[in-house]
Amino acid sequence: FTGDFHAIGAANNLLAAMLDNHIQQGNALGIDPKQITWKRAVDMNDRQLRHIIDGLGGKPNGVPREDGFDITVACEVMAVLCLASDLMDLKARLGRMIVGYTYDGRPVTAHDLKAEGAMAALLKDAIKPNLVQTLEGTPVLIHGGPFANIAHGCNSVTATRMALKLGDYVVTEAGFAADLGAEKFFDIKCRMAGLRPSAVVVVATVRALKYHGGVEKAELNNENLDALEKGLPNLLQHVENIQKVYGLPCVVAINAFPTDTEAELHMVEEKCRALGVNVALSEVWAKGGEGGMALAEEVVRLCQQPNDFHFCYEDSLSIAEKINAIARKVYHADGADLVGNAPKQLKQLEALGFGSLPVCMAKTQY
Amino acid sequence: FTGDFHAIGAANNLLAAMLDNHIQQGNALGIDPKQITWKRAVDMNDRQLRHIIDGLGGKPNGVPREDGFDITVACEVMAVLCLASDLMDLKARLGRMIVGYTYDGRPVTAHDLKAEGAMAALLKDAIKPNLVQTLEGTPVLIHGGPFANIAHGCNSVTATRMALKLGDYVVTEAGFAADLGAEKFFDIKCRMAGLRPSAVVVVATVRALKYHGGVEKAELNNENLDALEKGLPNLLQHVENIQKVYGLPCVVAINAFPTDTEAELHMVEEKCRALGVNVALSEVWAKGGEGGMALAEEVVRLCQQPNDFHFCYEDSLSIAEKINAIARKVYHADGADLVGNAPKQLKQLEALGFGSLPVCMAKTQY
Amino acid sequence: FTGDFHAIGAANNLLAAMLDNHIQQGNALGIDPKQITWKRAVDMNDRQLRHIIDGLGGKPNGVPREDGFDITVACEVMAVLCLASDLMDLKARLGRMIVGYTYDGRPVTAHDLKAEGAMAALLKDAIKPNLVQTLEGTPVLIHGGPFANIAHGCNSVTATRMALKLGDYVVTEAGFAADLGAEKFFDIKCRMAGLRPSAVVVVATVRALKYHGGVEKAELNNENLDALEKGLPNLLQHVENIQKVYGLPCVVAINAFPTDTEAELHMVEEKCRALGVNVALSEVWAKGGEGGMALAEEVVRLCQQPNDFHFCYEDSLSIAEKINAIARKVYHADGADLVGNAPKQLKQLEALGFGSLPVCMAKTQY
Amino acid sequence: FTGDFHAIGAANNLLAAMLDNHIQQGNALGIDPKQITWKRAVDMNDRQLRHIIDGLGGKPNGVPREDGFDITVACEVMAVLCLASDLMDLKARLGRMIVGYTYDGRPVTAHDLKAEGAMAALLKDAIKPNLVQTLEGTPVLIHGGPFANIAHGCNSVTATRMALKLGDYVVTEAGFAADLGAEKFFDIKCRMAGLRPSAVVVVATVRALKYHGGVEKAELNNENLDALEKGLPNLLQHVENIQKVYGLPCVVAINAFPTDTEAELHMVEEKCRALGVNVALSEVWAKGGEGGMALAEEVVRLCQQPNDFHFCYEDSLSIAEKINAIARKVYHADGADLVGNAPKQLKQLEALGFGSLPVCMAKTQY
Repeated sequence: FTGDFHAIGAANNLLAAMLDNHIQQGNALGIDPKQITWKRAVDMNDRQLRHIIDGLGGKPNGVPREDGFDITVACEVMAVLCLASDLMDLKARLGRMIVGYTYDGRPVTAHDLKAEGAMAALLKDAIKPNLVQTLEGTPVLIHGGPFANIAHGCNSVTATRMALKLGDYVVTEAGFAADLGAEKFFDIKCRMAGLRPSAVVVVATVRALKYHGGVEKAELNNENLDALEKGLPNLLQHVENIQKVYGLPCVVAINAFPTDTEAELHMVEEKCRALGVNVALSEVWAKGGEGGMALAEEVVRLCQQPNDFHFCYEDSLSIAEKINAIARKVYHADGADLVGNAPKQLKQLEALGFGSLPVCMAKTQY
Repeated sequence: FTGDFHAIGAANNLLAAMLDNHIQQGNALGIDPKQITWKRAVDMNDRQLRHIIDGLGGKPNGVPREDGFDITVACEVMAVLCLASDLMDLKARLGRMIVGYTYDGRPVTAHDLKAEGAMAALLKDAIKPNLVQTLEGTPVLIHGGPFANIAHGCNSVTATRMALKLGDYVVTEAGFAADLGAEKFFDIKCRMAGLRPSAVVVVATVRALKYHGGVEKAELNNENLDALEKGLPNLLQHVENIQKVYGLPCVVAINAFPTDTEAELHMVEEKCRALGVNVALSEVWAKGGEGGMALAEEVVRLCQQPNDFHFCYEDSLSIAEKINAIARKVYHADGADLVGNAPKQLKQLEALGFGSLPVCMAKTQY
Repeated sequence: FTGDFHAIGAANNLLAAMLDNHIQQGNALGIDPKQITWKRAVDMNDRQLRHIIDGLGGKPNGVPREDGFDITVACEVMAVLCLASDLMDLKARLGRMIVGYTYDGRPVTAHDLKAEGAMAALLKDAIKPNLVQTLEGTPVLIHGGPFANIAHGCNSVTATRMALKLGDYVVTEAGFAADLGAEKFFDIKCRMAGLRPSAVVVVATVRALKYHGGVEKAELNNENLDALEKGLPNLLQHVENIQKVYGLPCVVAINAFPTDTEAELHMVEEKCRALGVNVALSEVWAKGGEGGMALAEEVVRLCQQPNDFHFCYEDSLSIAEKINAIARKVYHADGADLVGNAPKQLKQLEALGFGSLPVCMAKTQY
Repeated sequence: FTGDFHAIGAANNLLAAMLDNHIQQGNALGIDPKQITWKRAVDMNDRQLRHIIDGLGGKPNGVPREDGFDITVACEVMAVLCLASDLMDLKARLGRMIVGYTYDGRPVTAHDLKAEGAMAALLKDAIKPNLVQTLEGTPVLIHGGPFANIAHGCNSVTATRMALKLGDYVVTEAGFAADLGAEKFFDIKCRMAGLRPSAVVVVATVRALKYHGGVEKAELNNENLDALEKGLPNLLQHVENIQKVYGLPCVVAINAFPTDTEAELHMVEEKCRALGVNVALSEVWAKGGEGGMALAEEVVRLCQQPNDFHFCYEDSLSIAEKINAIARKVYHADGADLVGNAPKQLKQLEALGFGSLPVCMAKTQY
């Protein structure tokens, strides 16, 4: 809603244009047009642009190659902006981004193309957090939006740090369910930015739990304790993950609907209490800030307790071991199979010195 | 510098995406993918994107077709925004834009795709003129920037009208030389917006006139009356065009350089006086507003004179006749040759009912 | 070496051109250009043509789409020619070939495009077997060459039938190892053409067996019984497959090399005898027909024995069951995993009525 | 009808594949993929292949570039085969063909790619003339078929020379009207092969002359002397060109139709006689060889006369002068305008040493 996304798209596309121009002007770095991994970005979900061939139209119009557009929010510049501590760090991080490989297999970075300065200049306003306010006047920072399905999915490090400096309690959102959003918030953002969270709010609705338990959409308004009981294990697993995998205290916030019955709410509470977790009914939607008092008090209480925060995996593990740790501890799978040329790619990534970085999991839609 | 260009690019690309999506979803209008004339836009001169093939990657990813990107400032949405009187007129003009043709040759407009509303929504802020100020605090409206080489090249109608309402005198720029910039300002913008200019300032430098007269760049600092004399007819023709073709009074403003000599300035003055035109030395660059007093006074004087403003050609002429009128009266050519399939295209345009519109001349770079 | 391959390529490409022309001329069948499965063919291994986009260059030049070229020997027309009994059957088989799918998912055949007649006309000479002779004057029919890695890999049904009519014994080659070549010869060609083979010759060399046993190429000239013993199980498994899976008698022909030692040949003989199979030394390379007498006599002997020929799987099994039968019986795997959208594709194939056809296995190079 | 066309297409495509493979393997010659002029060939008029992009599909599958297919008969290998004197000359001519340009603008030939040997090997049978016979048993050589609209349009030099050695009189066809077919036969083939024709037969029909004179197709069966008179100047100009431009004696052969009237034939004869040219009625279509006796006798008579054969232009003229000579002398135009970058291209061709070659005119369809 500010010009941030435009600036991010422009920085992304500037790098693409500088890359293609480098090739057009003689290709001193020996970049292989068939091994370019950097894509262009457009601030729209335009399927027509996902896979293209560009550089057509003869000698003056670039080098023909297979290319494509990502959505701006899904582009790497967005993720980098959200992880940078300041403009200098942003520039350094931009410079390290890999855009492709040379004919002899060496990685080519934005720095090799001398692009990071111009990109950072385009982003000099975008890196500043945006302050807005709620209907009740509470200050809110809205800054950055890397897609949670493929990127790390949380707001910017600069916004979180600024909030920590300015406020007593900072609440941050980590979307796309606790298995994906919370995992990446802890294992990527907290790790990279040295943040230690104090407590976790797991949000749920009775309706959704019943839906998980097999109720048809049209029937969700009716009490159904059987379905609720069938749907609850999913929620409880998320809660247990927070407690056991990350060592953090947790509260379950139920977004209240008028159709929720006493019996239903009671069942959720009981099952959660068995895990030592309280449930707070959130009526913010109906009553504003007033409706969140119970939740807020429980959060304050949890924050005062000591916690044993730790990551799901350590930096020193290999990439395959990190993937397995997430698969086993968070998703409770037997482990992860590496199919196709994934094992080869992991080896390449480790050979390039990326073995000690955290892993960013992606979730397909089905 | 505001978000205007981003909004214009987004509106342009939204239309493209809606067009391709229409085809993907069954193509109820029967649009021929090989006869799409609407291109995408990017706010960068990226040669790699000029000619592309998009819609690749199989069934879910659009329809393969030849496509391309224009620079945002060169896109039709920019031109339309600059000619619109208000948001409703903008929406109507957007709706009339042709994006391609059906299999049986009928034009398809943005309105056929129901796109103009969403486009206008994206442009609801961009249509408002931007008020900035000069170093001396004079208010300036900067609004719109259609490329002069291919579009009509002047700022927005809304900005000009707002300025006319607010100020005593409104100065507007019409770049790319008096033959192209002034011609299109008069014949397109003034005609469409019902504007009547009062006087014209033709800007020149002694250095440029000498350069036209054949002096090498390195020698431009030296007095050279011969070269100046050889270079002057170009300027005088522009002046005469303003007077005779458009019936407007005119002043020549010389942007003063320290290396201009008395004799040189004298020669320019004399030649202009022969056409009944005064020369005013502009020293704004060196002295600020102070340095433009002489020019301003001459402009005020000219504005008080009656004038006989008229267009280079009338609406009722055929397209070919309009082109010939411009070629003969403004460029002093024998006429214009229509090569290749241009005659056929003119017939099609007239058959589509576009015969009574003004002609927008383009200038190639060489 | 005759014009067969040219005719096959021309027939293949005629169908492609008719398909694209159908779309260009209004696409009465509603063929989805994104779901065309028919590719063009070129009689050369030209990597540049494997993946292309064609139909570019505007209105008169076709419909832009993703396309590609197969090598002529790998194209479906080649396989069809080799399975056809005569010209009428060829035409019928050509007509049944699927070239793509309509927008609403129905298959489009060559017959829908009325292409099979013209294609059969191009192939009217190519379907006739070619008679050549060996250096010793023995008649040989050379006819058809579908690639064994992706197609069924044996010569034409017409040639085999003609040979059966003309000769006392017909020897036919089924290349690419007994697991692939023999499997497809039995399960596809014999099944489709109603052929019953009498005996099988499995060809091996001592050198290759030692190589399988881990000997470096440079050392293959030296006796190495250890390596030979390690390499033999591969050969023995092929032999056992022939006997048990297909119920046919078998002889192992050793292509003799001067460097083979008595001890090595002896070991091969002994191991084969344990399976009830004789070994015949073939010295045809050195001595011509004379050198093959021993092998020939053993083959004649085997042909006189009754056999219990049967297929690896029955027509009535589902496609997945057939795949599993081959994986388990011939390759001695636990079974086959269907990855990605393979299960979905099998369902589609069965829905199209192809469930009762034999399966044509392909082998990747690594 | 022999394998000639297949061999020509294969040789053409082999060169293309070697070119792309050279680039894929490191591009030691520095060939610019955007300046490749060599196209692939297919023995079919397949519009879908005219403009393509190939080399798609990533690293192992070539280099993405704009490419296209010509029809085999229109490819340069066909023209070269028809101008070669023998296999060694063919190889040398193939080696000289230009396939594209390097990044620094130097031409790249088939010889630079070491392709001419393999190409000549593919063409070793195709270079031998094919002997067939007419229904009456007269021997005919049919060999080579370069399209007359874009190539030189006559049969092979080897066939003509063989015929000259074997027969008393050699008749050769030069299609596409006397202005194009005869011009290129004389100025290209005769010049390159050192042939001296003895006489020319200009073929016409009364029907076509009336059609030229404005008669509708449906009315061509009716006598119409007015239309015939209007259509005759076209024929007479062709006749005069043969006599004056090339210095050769000439006979007009009228292919007789049953509907031709005495009066019509008489008019043709008279007009031709005014130019000193006899008319012979050819009834070959109806009566076989018998029907061509009159024509044959006139040809024999003309061949016995001395002639003053010369070309339309000399080798030493510049390319532009040659083009002008053809335009003025053969087409009776004022001259030829070189539009677009044609003048630049002529300079490049002359700089490459091609200035002394004859010019091969092309004729568009409208």
